[in-house]
Amino acid sequence: MIPSIEWTKDNKVKMIDQTILPHELKFLIIDDYRDVATAIKVMNVRGAPAIGVAAAMAMALATLEYKNLSKEKFLESMTQAANQIRSTRPTASNLFWAIDRIWKIVNSLYDDPTSISELVIEEIKLMAQEDINVNKSIGKHGAELLDDGDVVHTHCNAGSLATVQYGTALAPIRAAIETGKQISVIADETRPRLQGARLTAYECHYDNIPVKVISDNSSGLLMMLGKINKIIVGTDRVTSDAVFNKIGTYMVALAAKDNNIPFYVAAPTSTLSLHETKEDVTIEQRNAEEVSNVLGKVQITPDGVECLNYAFDITPFRLVTGIITEDGVFTPEELLRKYK
Amino acid sequence: MIPSIEWTKDNKVKMIDQTILPHELKFLIIDDYRDVATAIKVMNVRGAPAIGVAAAMAMALATLEYKNLSKEKFLESMTQAANQIRSTRPTASNLFWAIDRIWKIVNSLYDDPTSISELVIEEIKLMAQEDINVNKSIGKHGAELLDDGDVVHTHCNAGSLATVQYGTALAPIRAAIETGKQISVIADETRPRLQGARLTAYECHYDNIPVKVISDNSSGLLMMLGKINKIIVGTDRVTSDAVFNKIGTYMVALAAKDNNIPFYVAAPTSTLSLHETKEDVTIEQRNAEEVSNVLGKVQITPDGVECLNYAFDITPFRLVTGIITEDGVFTPEELLRKYK
Repeated sequence: MIPSIEWTKDNKVKMIDQTILPHELKFLIIDDYRDVATAIKVMNVRGAPAIGVAAAMAMALATLEYKNLSKEKFLESMTQAANQIRSTRPTASNLFWAIDRIWKIVNSLYDDPTSISELVIEEIKLMAQEDINVNKSIGKHGAELLDDGDVVHTHCNAGSLATVQYGTALAPIRAAIETGKQISVIADETRPRLQGARLTAYECHYDNIPVKVISDNSSGLLMMLGKINKIIVGTDRVTSDAVFNKIGTYMVALAAKDNNIPFYVAAPTSTLSLHETKEDVTIEQRNAEEVSNVLGKVQITPDGVECLNYAFDITPFRLVTGIITEDGVFTPEELLRKYK
Repeated sequence: MIPSIEWTKDNKVKMIDQTILPHELKFLIIDDYRDVATAIKVMNVRGAPAIGVAAAMAMALATLEYKNLSKEKFLESMTQAANQIRSTRPTASNLFWAIDRIWKIVNSLYDDPTSISELVIEEIKLMAQEDINVNKSIGKHGAELLDDGDVVHTHCNAGSLATVQYGTALAPIRAAIETGKQISVIADETRPRLQGARLTAYECHYDNIPVKVISDNSSGLLMMLGKINKIIVGTDRVTSDAVFNKIGTYMVALAAKDNNIPFYVAAPTSTLSLHETKEDVTIEQRNAEEVSNVLGKVQITPDGVECLNYAFDITPFRLVTGIITEDGVFTPEELLRKYK
């Protein structure tokens, strides 16, 4: 398990370039917040928790760049930086949560811009460590849901690569295996960006967790044939009525319901946005070429045919068996009672 | 609309090579039944009705090859040929239906092998014409289900390319457009072989039917957002309790049910196998490389990770609104009453 994103000793952001996995493991070293924003946008780094930490680190780079400005200019520049980072991707809660968290420090201390960098850098290191701690807690609570021999299906990648380390949806699997249970994973490929085939398969294989890959449209049949025991997915945002996660999650949840298979969502509390309902959320629509041209290498559609590329979908609470946070496992009703 | 498969004047099989669409339109000219069997297996020709006609044409080539043999040797060779053709793909009813239909002629007339070829060739020409007639009837009945302005979602390709011509699932769309209705199509890409992105998109675009392509995991969201009005899919086999069709059909049907969207299956009576239940059917598992390596051009999984590749799935009758045959539109219960 390699950290997907780190703050280096010489104040740079080091991240795995997830666009070229699984064939190459390369790191990007970034010292300009604008380049971190681009990395979020083009998905060098992805996964709601990792996006949050990346956004906070981008804010830290901006404070370094602007710390010698006057108080007024500093705040103006930081506002611009925050807006640019905020505009990279619209759906994941963590992006906004992380920027707001850093903004509180920026805002409370703007009488002395020079000292802010140090405080912000302390904060992002704390956030990165918190992320790992939260994931370990999700793992501990979620592992209790898994039985020896379970085959767990997951969609997209909510593993170590989607977080700083350890993962959210993969955390219960990791933790169950650490306690000696035999668990194997079925990863669907997760078109169009193939995070399941590329990233979940990569990190499971890397960490010796047995994994098989299927096309997205196969999980229903496998559930019907009794080849999947449980489902755990991550989430980009949980509203008071639904779970937003990678496109396809809703169809997996429907198949789980139809086959009486438990459907769990691993959700750090940083993804909870319970003051909102599903109507409040913008679903990102990405470039149609991600669909028409697989990984930019094979065009699969005829010239001139339009593609639609919604990046997330909406899974209503009625399809969710349980939500695993760092505090425990909750039904949607219990989650609302506890956190709303 | 180009015929996907034809019998030529000089007694050869001419078929579109569907593995290289949509980028190239090329024809294969085949004069050996073994090569037709291979073409079925590697999916140069695919789609249940087209597979049926291809199998019958392969039988016709075999009669030409063996017609000068003694009665005994002829029957022995034809049995071998039939077995080889029958073993190409296990799920589509039409393959077995077509071979059995030709076998009746072979068997009833084996006192005179030399005359059999002519009779079999007459029969396959009839079958090809029947296929077109059946599809036009499906179109006529199915068109009545469609309203002006409908956006119809289809999975895989059950169009002209899956039949001799005109298609099954696409037939109602073609027929509705012929009567002046505005109908557009949402085609999902249909991993792993991408028949939706490559073939449905190609033939709709070719015939000026408005079409957009989505990833397989997107149709649920589009239904939830009200962007799909009806669903029509084809089928490879209908048993007394379920519809067998391309992997992913079941998950589309679940999403349709959850969103109260009518889910129709276009099924020529040659696909009906109502004496069977779903337990009787073998679901083809194809080479895992079709999943791990997109169109043989881009490897998407890490080396050493296994993939599963089930080619079809099972949609229980409870999810099916109506089945469109050449005789009309029937609920599953009505279908059983009429044909069982």
